[in-house]
Amino acid sequence: MFSLTVCDHIMIAHSFRGEEFGPAQRLHGATFAVEAEFRAEKLDHAQLLIDIGLAKTELRSVLDTLDYSNLDDHPLLRSINTTTEQMAFHIHGLLATACRDGRLGNGGRAVSSIKVLLRESPNAWAAYEGAVA
Amino acid sequence: MFSLTVCDHIMIAHSFRGEEFGPAQRLHGATFAVEAEFRAEKLDHAQLLIDIGLAKTELRSVLDTLDYSNLDDHPLLRSINTTTEQMAFHIHGLLATACRDGRLGNGGRAVSSIKVLLRESPNAWAAYEGAVA
Amino acid sequence: MFSLTVCDHIMIAHSFRGEEFGPAQRLHGATFAVEAEFRAEKLDHAQLLIDIGLAKTELRSVLDTLDYSNLDDHPLLRSINTTTEQMAFHIHGLLATACRDGRLGNGGRAVSSIKVLLRESPNAWAAYEGAVA
Amino acid sequence: MFSLTVCDHIMIAHSFRGEEFGPAQRLHGATFAVEAEFRAEKLDHAQLLIDIGLAKTELRSVLDTLDYSNLDDHPLLRSINTTTEQMAFHIHGLLATACRDGRLGNGGRAVSSIKVLLRESPNAWAAYEGAVA
Amino acid sequence: MFSLTVCDHIMIAHSFRGEEFGPAQRLHGATFAVEAEFRAEKLDHAQLLIDIGLAKTELRSVLDTLDYSNLDDHPLLRSINTTTEQMAFHIHGLLATACRDGRLGNGGRAVSSIKVLLRESPNAWAAYEGAVA
Amino acid sequence: MFSLTVCDHIMIAHSFRGEEFGPAQRLHGATFAVEAEFRAEKLDHAQLLIDIGLAKTELRSVLDTLDYSNLDDHPLLRSINTTTEQMAFHIHGLLATACRDGRLGNGGRAVSSIKVLLRESPNAWAAYEGAVA
Repeated sequence: MFSLTVCDHIMIAHSFRGEEFGPAQRLHGATFAVEAEFRAEKLDHAQLLIDIGLAKTELRSVLDTLDYSNLDDHPLLRSINTTTEQMAFHIHGLLATACRDGRLGNGGRAVSSIKVLLRESPNAWAAYEGAVA
Repeated sequence: MFSLTVCDHIMIAHSFRGEEFGPAQRLHGATFAVEAEFRAEKLDHAQLLIDIGLAKTELRSVLDTLDYSNLDDHPLLRSINTTTEQMAFHIHGLLATACRDGRLGNGGRAVSSIKVLLRESPNAWAAYEGAVA
Repeated sequence: MFSLTVCDHIMIAHSFRGEEFGPAQRLHGATFAVEAEFRAEKLDHAQLLIDIGLAKTELRSVLDTLDYSNLDDHPLLRSINTTTEQMAFHIHGLLATACRDGRLGNGGRAVSSIKVLLRESPNAWAAYEGAVA
Repeated sequence: MFSLTVCDHIMIAHSFRGEEFGPAQRLHGATFAVEAEFRAEKLDHAQLLIDIGLAKTELRSVLDTLDYSNLDDHPLLRSINTTTEQMAFHIHGLLATACRDGRLGNGGRAVSSIKVLLRESPNAWAAYEGAVA
Repeated sequence: MFSLTVCDHIMIAHSFRGEEFGPAQRLHGATFAVEAEFRAEKLDHAQLLIDIGLAKTELRSVLDTLDYSNLDDHPLLRSINTTTEQMAFHIHGLLATACRDGRLGNGGRAVSSIKVLLRESPNAWAAYEGAVA
Repeated sequence: MFSLTVCDHIMIAHSFRGEEFGPAQRLHGATFAVEAEFRAEKLDHAQLLIDIGLAKTELRSVLDTLDYSNLDDHPLLRSINTTTEQMAFHIHGLLATACRDGRLGNGGRAVSSIKVLLRESPNAWAAYEGAVA
C-alpha cells in the first residue's frame, strides 16, 4: 500500500457543551495542524499516487471553509461539539468528496482511503481514517 | 476508524542481558516519549472518542509506576530485557486494563484497540498495537 | 551563559483590529506552544540553574490565567491586539515577576534574563527576550 | 503487532518528466528523511524484534547506494520518475531483500512487513508498506 | 528584544568543489527548511513586529529565485560552494534588502537584524545572523 | 555571525543528590539529544564554517565517553549532580578543547564560541554557551 501525505493548518475558535469538557466549555481556540494522508494500491504511469500540487491546493481549499472562524457559528457544525476527532471526520468527508468529484485528478479517483490527522497541541492529536467510495 | 492520541514521557535506567546488545549491556538509561493511541469505530453522543483529560491522567498514572526508576529492579520486569518494544507491550497491557476497568469512562469501554509507541531517541522508536478485550 | 527551557501550551480565542490583519480580524483561535527559557551566568551548589519542577509549576500557573479563554475579554489585554509577539511579552512579564518574587526559588532570583517563545503554527512563531530585573 | 523503526537520511538530485510536475521538471534535489518500520507478531527470546544496531547498519548500507547522487543517472531508476512514493517502494524492496537474505539476523527473517516512509519536506511525505516474503 | 519567525522550504540540486567535501563533490541535492527570524526592539501601534502575511509572501518570493533549481547554474552562486551556511548568508542578504526597500512595510524598516537558519537534514543546520542596515 | 549545528544523542543513567530533586534522587536515566552549535564571524575560502563531517565525527567521539554509561560512576562527574545544564557545560568543554587542539581542522581554530544544547524530554532542555579560547 502506498500513501502520500500533505500538511497545512487552521486557526479556529470554538467551545464545547457538556460537563465532561471542564474549562473547555468556555470559548477558546486551537491551531489544528492537519495531515491528509491519501492511500492507494498502485502508482500511475508517472510514478505518482496523486499530484502533490493538486493535493496541497485542494487541502487548502477545504481548510479555507474553516480557517480564521468560530466553529460555534459554522452552519454544519454549530449543533455538535467540534472535538479534534470530529473535525478530522469532517475534513475527511470534504477530501473524500474532492477525490470522488475528480478535483484531485485521476490519481484522486484511484485513492482507496484517506486518513486525516489533526494535531491540537504538542501532546494530543486525533484522526479519522475511512474509505473514499 | 477514529483514534485519539495523548503523549507523556518517562526517564528510566536499565541494562540488557545478551551479547547482541553490545554496549547497552552496561547500565544506562533512556527518556521514553510515550504516545498512547486509542482507537474506536464511533464517537459518543458528545463527539468524543474518550475524555482527553481522563486519558492524560490515566496515562500519567500508568507511567508513574515506571518513571524515575531502574527497570532492572522492577518486580515484573527484572527477569526480562526492557527493550523499547517490550516496554510498549508492557504499557499497552496497563492501558488496556484501565479501559476494561472503566478508568477511562464509557469511552474507554468502547475502545477497540490501543497502539503504544515509545520514542527512545530522535532516530529510533518501537510500538505495540493490540486489541483491548 | 547557561539556559534552562521548559514548555507547555495554551488554547485561546481572540480577534484582531486593523485592516492589515485581513481574515484574522474575525474571531478565531490558536494553540500557543510556549517555551520559557531562563538564563543565568552560573549554576548553584547543586549544579542547577533553577529547580525544573518549580519552573514547570510556575509556568503552568502563569498560563492558567490565559488558558481556555477568549483573550478579547481579558482585563489587561482587551484593548490591544494579542499578537503572538505581544503575548510573548505578556508572559515574559509574568515570569519575570515570579523570579523577582522568589516563586522560582533562589535560582530564580539569579536569573538574568528570560526568553519566551510562542509557536502559533508549524511555520510561524514569535519571542520576547528581556532582563528580569 | 510489534514494530521497530529506525531513521536516517539521503541527499539526492533528480528531475521529473511530465507536464504535471511543473517546475519539478527542472533538475533539483531533496533531503529524504527515511523511516524504516519493521513489523512482527512476536519478539524473540531476548525481547527484541530485530537487533537495532543491525537495522541501522543495514539501512545505512541500503541508503549508501543512493546518497549524494543524481537519481537521473541511477541504472535502475533513470527510466522512471523518482517520486517520493516511488523511492519509498524502491527502498522497501532493498530492505525486504536484506531481511530475506538474513542480513538482519533471525529477527529479520521473522519480520512480516516493512513500511518505508520518506519525508521530502516539513509538509509532505510518502510511504510504501508491504510484506517481506 | 522581539522576534518573529516564518518558515518555508526549497528543494535544490548542487555539488561542491574541494577534496574536503568527499562524496558531496558529486551532484546531489537538499531540501532546505528555511526559518527567517526578524528582530526589533519595539512593536508597532497594532502590536505587530512585521505583518506576518507580508513576511511569508516576501520569504516565498525570495525563495522562488532558488527553488527547484540546480544552484551550480545560478548566476550569482556558480563560482562558489553553496554550503548551507553560505545559502543562509545569501538569503539573509535578499531579505535584508526587502526590509530596506519597504517590501515588508513600515515594520520591516524597523527590523534591526535578521537571522536566517537552514535545516539541511534532521541532524544538521546552519545560520547567518546580521544587521539589516 | 555564522553558525553550524550538528546533532547526536546519548543514553545514560544517573541519580541526583539533594531534596530539591524529589523522585529524581532515585537512579533513573535519560536520552540526551545533543545539539552542538559552532559560531564564527567568517567562512573559509571554500564557504565552510567547519567541515561538517569532522564536526559529526568529533561530536560522536566526545559523546562516546558518556554514552551507555552510569554517570554516577564517571571519574570526573561522580562528585557532582549531572543535571542537563551541567552536562551541556561538560560537553562544551570537550568540544572547545577539540577546536583548540585542531581536531576540527582550521575551521575549528576559527570558531569563536560554541553552544551545546541538551534536550532531556520533549518539554525540557538546557544549554551552555561560551567562548572557545
